[in-house]
Amino acid sequence: MSILIKQAEINGEISDLLIENGKIARIAKDIAEPADEVINGTNKAVLPAFYNLHTHSGMSILRGYSDDKELFSWLSKDIWPMEAKFDRTVIPDATKLALLEMIKTGTVGFCDMYFENMQDIIMQAVDEMGLRALVSIVIMDLFDDDMRKKKMKDLEGLCRLSNPCPERIIKGISVHAVYTTSLDLMRHSAEVAKEYNMPLHIHTCETKKEVDDCLAKYGKTPIEVLNDSGLLTDSTVLAHSVWLSDKDIDIINEKGCILVANPVSNLKLCSGIFNYDRLRKKGCRIALGTDGCASNNNLSMIEEMKFLALLAKIESNNPTVASASEVFEIATKGGANALGFDAGEVKEGKLADLLLVDLNNPLLIPNYNLISNMVYAADSSVIDTVICNGKIVMKDRKVENEDEIIAASKVLAKRLSVM
Amino acid sequence: MSILIKQAEINGEISDLLIENGKIARIAKDIAEPADEVINGTNKAVLPAFYNLHTHSGMSILRGYSDDKELFSWLSKDIWPMEAKFDRTVIPDATKLALLEMIKTGTVGFCDMYFENMQDIIMQAVDEMGLRALVSIVIMDLFDDDMRKKKMKDLEGLCRLSNPCPERIIKGISVHAVYTTSLDLMRHSAEVAKEYNMPLHIHTCETKKEVDDCLAKYGKTPIEVLNDSGLLTDSTVLAHSVWLSDKDIDIINEKGCILVANPVSNLKLCSGIFNYDRLRKKGCRIALGTDGCASNNNLSMIEEMKFLALLAKIESNNPTVASASEVFEIATKGGANALGFDAGEVKEGKLADLLLVDLNNPLLIPNYNLISNMVYAADSSVIDTVICNGKIVMKDRKVENEDEIIAASKVLAKRLSVM
Repeated sequence: MSILIKQAEINGEISDLLIENGKIARIAKDIAEPADEVINGTNKAVLPAFYNLHTHSGMSILRGYSDDKELFSWLSKDIWPMEAKFDRTVIPDATKLALLEMIKTGTVGFCDMYFENMQDIIMQAVDEMGLRALVSIVIMDLFDDDMRKKKMKDLEGLCRLSNPCPERIIKGISVHAVYTTSLDLMRHSAEVAKEYNMPLHIHTCETKKEVDDCLAKYGKTPIEVLNDSGLLTDSTVLAHSVWLSDKDIDIINEKGCILVANPVSNLKLCSGIFNYDRLRKKGCRIALGTDGCASNNNLSMIEEMKFLALLAKIESNNPTVASASEVFEIATKGGANALGFDAGEVKEGKLADLLLVDLNNPLLIPNYNLISNMVYAADSSVIDTVICNGKIVMKDRKVENEDEIIAASKVLAKRLSVM
Repeated sequence: MSILIKQAEINGEISDLLIENGKIARIAKDIAEPADEVINGTNKAVLPAFYNLHTHSGMSILRGYSDDKELFSWLSKDIWPMEAKFDRTVIPDATKLALLEMIKTGTVGFCDMYFENMQDIIMQAVDEMGLRALVSIVIMDLFDDDMRKKKMKDLEGLCRLSNPCPERIIKGISVHAVYTTSLDLMRHSAEVAKEYNMPLHIHTCETKKEVDDCLAKYGKTPIEVLNDSGLLTDSTVLAHSVWLSDKDIDIINEKGCILVANPVSNLKLCSGIFNYDRLRKKGCRIALGTDGCASNNNLSMIEEMKFLALLAKIESNNPTVASASEVFEIATKGGANALGFDAGEVKEGKLADLLLVDLNNPLLIPNYNLISNMVYAADSSVIDTVICNGKIVMKDRKVENEDEIIAASKVLAKRLSVM
């Protein structure tokens, strides 16, 4: 399938852009070649799409279910009992609600950490809706032998599971955290990840308590424990990473891990503020994620960029830190590269993961600096069309099966309330 | 004019709502009375609209013009030289761009601080577009005698200026700040405000430097200086108010002033974080504002609510602080009351300043808690219809003269770039 976008603003100039075989084939002033679909780009700009490097997709069905609570009572009284109801009849619609929201807010790829043995369902939903994802099983044993054995078996199941679209979907292993996972299970996960060449995705250093407890228990920081377990590689995605020592940062950089800032969730749960300026200066690989809908409560990378940029400024007491262009690159190219996709730029040869934004939306007017407008002014209302891997997944703000997904989500939410 | 909204979600139930003579006349299960306009409220909810209690409307035309800079170089090298070009040919279109954005993001009233002797133009734009505003002249003299005399004359001009719509528009006086305005001019402004019964709108305690410099110069805090000048009353709106002493808070509460949180601007310029929890516990009147577009860079009260709630949590290290319902009330009823309008609630007898939000927007699904969804999940894409003073100002996401305003703003931005 080929797509020709005519007369759009592309990298600051009015140009045409041709997409062929999932890639940006050509950008030029006037492309006359025929294409399967021609998009009128007048008053629109082409931008790279977003990659959400840490989320829990199915939790979208918990949006607004419980807020403004202490972490532990929030988890134990509200979230966990609700999640205990999540079976194979819940996850399809819950996942599709998340995917619909991602598309509507301009995200085409995500790094997921969800759920018990339902990766087949999640992969199918991602495939159907045309997105990219790292789909992973959640590994934790709460230091219980039986649970450990079960999780090892689940992990074997994931390894055997066939991938409906290896071009867009990656299977991975999410080790939940050092405070929920035994050393044995961590080491085992690292070995399986190595054997099957699967990326790792880990919650780490989210709260000060996590670090203090880990030091008390192991005499090491969480990063040191993860490293000693063999879990840190250049395809390990470390979510949160709020409380890192200088030595932790050295280990992370030596191994080439990706740090994922989750500013909104960290504020909502009072975890802390990602040390953007310090980590940037140390040369860390940084990506951006929204976390799940229960602690955010949306999946908008546009909103997340603004929180990242503004918190980085106040945290470092320097308004020049975390410029719009830097943060936009983190949310696009940074995320794509972290997932191993050659995308995140509007450039010939790159994967065609693109947005068309509406330059007649008041939030993008005036257009002195489109990237500043995207980071500091925009919201999802500016996104008109979304393309992933050279295919249109949203056009004129409409996703093909949107009405069905919304109807099914409403039914599911009602069902969960009375279950 | 009467409007009948049929079968919408209103305060948690499906009801009809009748608007007559600018007010909510009736809310009931089935209203059969005829109305000039009937709105189908199926899959929509009726909510109170927002009031932006501190902004500089015309600065919308500077959106994205200069970001990520140190305050002083930002102001002196970029913002002030650009503002120096703002004459009576610039302000009409610049103002309308701001009003259009406010409507699109659900705001029907605002407290403005803009500009030299152009309040007639701003009042006309507010009147034409059907909104509410406190329109004010900016008073400052930079401690220069000639400028003080000019400003006193300007103030006389404002007093004589006729108000095209006293029902929706209030004339007010904005004393810029203690560091830009002499004691004489502050005292004079207080007298004029008292004589003409005009509210006051003042930048105060925005930065620590402002407070330190004021203590060094006057041996008093900015709040003490303002109080001694007679500027603190129960219709005085104090923007920013980040750096307040306990004694300041006592004075503010004794006088009944309104504190306006501007969380986004305070982060972007590294001013500090509004002490929400402390001020709430002290019983302060709190409202919310976006500041101008040059330091935000939008006028979205939805986004501002989320920043307020999340920053209040992290600042107090307590996730239960600044609940969604509390913050929503501040942005609606809190703002309306601060401006003296009996609005901000969906209740019979209140002014009909209302939103219809789209319950089929993924950001509002599931609908466990609509107010949580509005504060933590929504963006402007959820807003379908906006009603101010019983008249529709946006319907089905379209503002009547939107295309003209957008076209004029684009022309103006180009003109300013080459001026």
